[in-house]
Amino acid sequence: MGEQSILRERIPEPALRRLPWYLAYAKLAQRNGELSLSSTRIAKALAIESSQVAKDLSAVNVSGKTRVGYDVGTLIEVLEFFLGFGDVHNAFVCGVGNLGASLIQDNGLRNYGLNIIAGFDVKYEMEGMRINQIPIHHMDRFAELCRKTRTEIGILTVPVESAQTTAELMIEGGIRAIWNFTPFRICVPEDIIVQNTSIYSHLALIFNRLSLANKRE
Amino acid sequence: MGEQSILRERIPEPALRRLPWYLAYAKLAQRNGELSLSSTRIAKALAIESSQVAKDLSAVNVSGKTRVGYDVGTLIEVLEFFLGFGDVHNAFVCGVGNLGASLIQDNGLRNYGLNIIAGFDVKYEMEGMRINQIPIHHMDRFAELCRKTRTEIGILTVPVESAQTTAELMIEGGIRAIWNFTPFRICVPEDIIVQNTSIYSHLALIFNRLSLANKRE
Repeated sequence: MGEQSILRERIPEPALRRLPWYLAYAKLAQRNGELSLSSTRIAKALAIESSQVAKDLSAVNVSGKTRVGYDVGTLIEVLEFFLGFGDVHNAFVCGVGNLGASLIQDNGLRNYGLNIIAGFDVKYEMEGMRINQIPIHHMDRFAELCRKTRTEIGILTVPVESAQTTAELMIEGGIRAIWNFTPFRICVPEDIIVQNTSIYSHLALIFNRLSLANKRE
Repeated sequence: MGEQSILRERIPEPALRRLPWYLAYAKLAQRNGELSLSSTRIAKALAIESSQVAKDLSAVNVSGKTRVGYDVGTLIEVLEFFLGFGDVHNAFVCGVGNLGASLIQDNGLRNYGLNIIAGFDVKYEMEGMRINQIPIHHMDRFAELCRKTRTEIGILTVPVESAQTTAELMIEGGIRAIWNFTPFRICVPEDIIVQNTSIYSHLALIFNRLSLANKRE
């Protein structure tokens, strides 16, 4: 574990973003009964340069054999380790509206190492509810429960006007990493990790490209 | 409409990605009763250069007044137009597992112009079901219903091993834009629009940064 832990930090972000693609492809190959994969084949399937594949995989300390390629089982194991999908990371959801409730209901996230253990909302009538067996509490109890459970990941799915204040409450409570699903750019201290997942920006890109394509016809 | 339609296509992708942030911030200001916003204030709130804000907004043909700034109402109206959030875009969901069902349940997407009208799955036992009042059909009926409803947007939430074949079925059925939530990189003809929303990559980034931060302490 020691050496791998050290190497974990050396992976640049663009490579880290590609690792889940390799993992998905390796799992697919495993299901098809394949035992090894060449970087050329991975590259072709994912439409990336094969030198890039080799470089990315050497960054996670996987090496292929000449004319044989990467061992599929090893590839899956190492990628899951580096991606953190094999660990269990507790998380709180703040804002149990449409999107928040959807994430609480999505058991698929657990397969990727994310364990949502509670939801929080400012609506008092939601207190004591359970969604997908996960308890919903009032935001008033956030700090207390955050400390008790040592939860470090907070998922931000509140309305845009509460994004900043809720982020601040999360950080005060002890949250170290915020997964921000709101279209609001929250301001946080430097040591807090923020990952923006702006599904609405992605929607806008689809709409825009589609309207351009339709106009061209 | 004519002039705005022409301008719509000139917006570069990075600017388009920032527009939802401006929209969110403008809506927040409107709720607080503000009538105008300067580019400096927007820039400060979103941690962007104010010259960038001015450039992005002039790309969507909004101009501010000296010492007053942008009219909040106009800003919201124009941004919603350019982002396509004011229109109604019909969409089909393929793969009604955890994530697919969550998206069907998320009424919030409708506020951003995405109208999911049906879900499709290969499981025959799901046929005839309704989730959030939206009907679920077998994949066999995809092409027929796609043609009938002229649906152009397909949301891909199948297991990774079916991602490529399902994408191909979608395209055969008439889908022009695929919102790919799987971690698989699908290969499609050039004229098909693909937007990858890899929430698992984002999770991996959070886990990775968090484990590095914890190690540093």
